[in-house]
Amino acid sequence: MSSPAVEDPPVLPALLLFHRMSAGFYAATHAALRQRYRLLDFYASGEPLPAFLAGAAAMPDPPRAAVVVGGRYIRVDAELLDAVPSLAFVCNTGAGVDHVDLHECARRGVAVANSGNVYSADVADQAVGLLIDVLRQVSAAGRFVRSGSWPVQGDYPLGRKLGGKRVGIIGMGNIGSLIAKRLEAFGCVIYYNSRRQKDSVPYKYFLNIHELASESDVLVVACALNKDTRQIVDKGVLEALGKDGIIINIGRGAHVDEVELVRALKEGRIAGAGLDVFENEPKVPPELFSMDNVVMTHHIAIFTAESMYDLRDRTICNLEAFFSGKPLLTPVHPW
Amino acid sequence: MSSPAVEDPPVLPALLLFHRMSAGFYAATHAALRQRYRLLDFYASGEPLPAFLAGAAAMPDPPRAAVVVGGRYIRVDAELLDAVPSLAFVCNTGAGVDHVDLHECARRGVAVANSGNVYSADVADQAVGLLIDVLRQVSAAGRFVRSGSWPVQGDYPLGRKLGGKRVGIIGMGNIGSLIAKRLEAFGCVIYYNSRRQKDSVPYKYFLNIHELASESDVLVVACALNKDTRQIVDKGVLEALGKDGIIINIGRGAHVDEVELVRALKEGRIAGAGLDVFENEPKVPPELFSMDNVVMTHHIAIFTAESMYDLRDRTICNLEAFFSGKPLLTPVHPW
Repeated sequence: MSSPAVEDPPVLPALLLFHRMSAGFYAATHAALRQRYRLLDFYASGEPLPAFLAGAAAMPDPPRAAVVVGGRYIRVDAELLDAVPSLAFVCNTGAGVDHVDLHECARRGVAVANSGNVYSADVADQAVGLLIDVLRQVSAAGRFVRSGSWPVQGDYPLGRKLGGKRVGIIGMGNIGSLIAKRLEAFGCVIYYNSRRQKDSVPYKYFLNIHELASESDVLVVACALNKDTRQIVDKGVLEALGKDGIIINIGRGAHVDEVELVRALKEGRIAGAGLDVFENEPKVPPELFSMDNVVMTHHIAIFTAESMYDLRDRTICNLEAFFSGKPLLTPVHPW
Repeated sequence: MSSPAVEDPPVLPALLLFHRMSAGFYAATHAALRQRYRLLDFYASGEPLPAFLAGAAAMPDPPRAAVVVGGRYIRVDAELLDAVPSLAFVCNTGAGVDHVDLHECARRGVAVANSGNVYSADVADQAVGLLIDVLRQVSAAGRFVRSGSWPVQGDYPLGRKLGGKRVGIIGMGNIGSLIAKRLEAFGCVIYYNSRRQKDSVPYKYFLNIHELASESDVLVVACALNKDTRQIVDKGVLEALGKDGIIINIGRGAHVDEVELVRALKEGRIAGAGLDVFENEPKVPPELFSMDNVVMTHHIAIFTAESMYDLRDRTICNLEAFFSGKPLLTPVHPW
C-alpha cells in the first residue's frame, strides 16, 4: 500500500462519477472536477457496476463522495451504499433525486445535495414553450411549412388562445412557481395542487388532483417524483381533464400513466400533450410520432449552456463544502 | 332597374367581401355577415377583379362598404377606389393595414377601420413561442424524437437560456408592449425602437435601429409595415445583431430583407430565426427547410378560435357603426 508521504504531486481526493459524459452535456463540469479530484468514472471504465464499485471500495483512499446525474442509469440505494461503505456524500447534478434513496442515505448518515434551483427557470421556460407550441401549433405548422404544403393546401385548423386558460400546476415548488409567474403574464388563470397549501402564492389550491383536473384546461406536471406522485396523472385524472384538456409534463415520465395517456390521445379523450419526459427514456411510444397535437422534446428542459455553467459552480461548491466539513449549499433531506 | 319599393324582403345593404373564405379561417365572421348584408364575394365570384368591381359599381345599390383581409391578395388603392366610387368604408379584418392606401382613402373621405387589438395578445404569444422554440430547440428536438434518433444518437447540442437575454423590440404598440410584458416574466431585458420614445413603458429606447441591434441578443419585429419600416431589418442590421443574434418576425415578411436573412443564416452570421411571415407568402425560401435553428409558422400568429369570435364581433360592430352613421370602434388614420 502506498502512503501519501511518498506521493508527489499530492493525491487528489477520489470521486465516484456517474455521468454519461459521452452525452457531452456536462463538459464544463467535467473539466472543473478533473482539476480537483481523481475521477473514478463509471461510464468511462467500461466495467460492470459491481466490479467498478468493488474496485473503488478496495482502493487505499476509497471515495467519500459521488457525483450522480439523475435518470435511469444509476440508483443510489442500499446495495450501492453497501458496496462502497466509504461513501458519505452524494452530489446530484440533476433537478430530481428520485434515483437516490433519501431515507437509506439519511439512515447511514450519507449527506445528499442536489443542484438546487440552478435549472428551475430553464425547466419553467420549457414548460411554457411546450404549452404555447401545443395551443398555437408551432411545431405542427413548422412541419406543414417544411413539407411544402402551404402553397398547395393553404388551409389549416385554428389554434387556441393562451389568455384565460385555467392552468392547473401539480407541484408548486421552485419550478411550479416560476411556471405560474410566466403564465400569469399571458393572462392564464393559475390553480395548483401540492402536498400542502402554500402561503407564498396567491393561486387557488386544490388538495384533490381530480378536482384540479376537472377545473383546469391544462395540467402541468412540475412536482418531484416519489411514491405519492408516481402516476399521479392516471386514467381518472385524464378523464377529469377531458377532451379539450392538455397535459404538459416536465417532471418525470413516471408521473403519468403513459399507456393511458397514449390511449386518451388516440381516442381524442384529451386534446393534446407537451412532453419533455417519458416513462422508458430514451424510448418514446411510437404512436405519438404521427400526432400533430403532441409536442415532444427529449428530456432537455434543464439543458442550456447557461445553466450548465451554473451547475458546474454549484457542484464544485457543494463538493468543497463537503470535503472541508462546511454546510452544503443545497442539501436534500428525505422529509 | 328595380326599385327598393317592389322588393320583398327588404334589400340588405351590399357589402364587398375580399376574403379567401376557402381558407376556412373566417367561418364565424362570414355567417354573421351573410345575415346582415348582401355579400358581393370576390373570391366566390370567380371573376377577374376589374369585371367584379365594374359589376358591383353598376348595381342599383352599389356597395358603400368593403370587408378586406390583409395579405397579398388585394390592394385598396386609387385604382380600386376609382372602380367603385360608391365605396365609403373599408373594414379591414387583419392586424396590419399595409394593403390599404390610407392617404388615398383619407383624401377621398373613405373611412377605414381595422380589427384593433383583437389579435394583439395572440400575436404576442406566438412571438414568445417562436423565441422559446429557437432558444430551446423545441421543434428541432421534436424532429429528433419523431425520427427515432434519441435511442440511437443520444447526444444533442445545448439550448440557450431566456433569462438575461436582451430583447430589442421593433415597434412598441399594442403587440410590442404585450411581448415585452411576457418576456419580462422570463427575466429578459427589454429594449425597443419606435418612431417616438413612449412615456407608457419603462424600457430603454433606441432611436437608431443599428444601435438597438448591436445591443440586443434578439430582435423582434412587431411594428406596422409602411415606407419607413419596409426592410427595416436589412444587411446592416443583421450584421449589427451578430452571429449569436436571433430574429423573430411576427410583423410582415417585407420588414426583413429575406435574401440577406437567408444568406446570414446559411453563413452562420446570425444564430437563428423564428418567422411567422415571409416576403412572398405562401412561398418560403426552401433553403430554410433544412435549418434546425429556424422555426417557421405560416402566418398564423392571429389565428386562434377565440380571436376569430372577437374578430366577428368587432367587424359587425364597425359595419353597424358605419351604416348607422356612428363613430367607428377602431378607426385607422394615415397619421
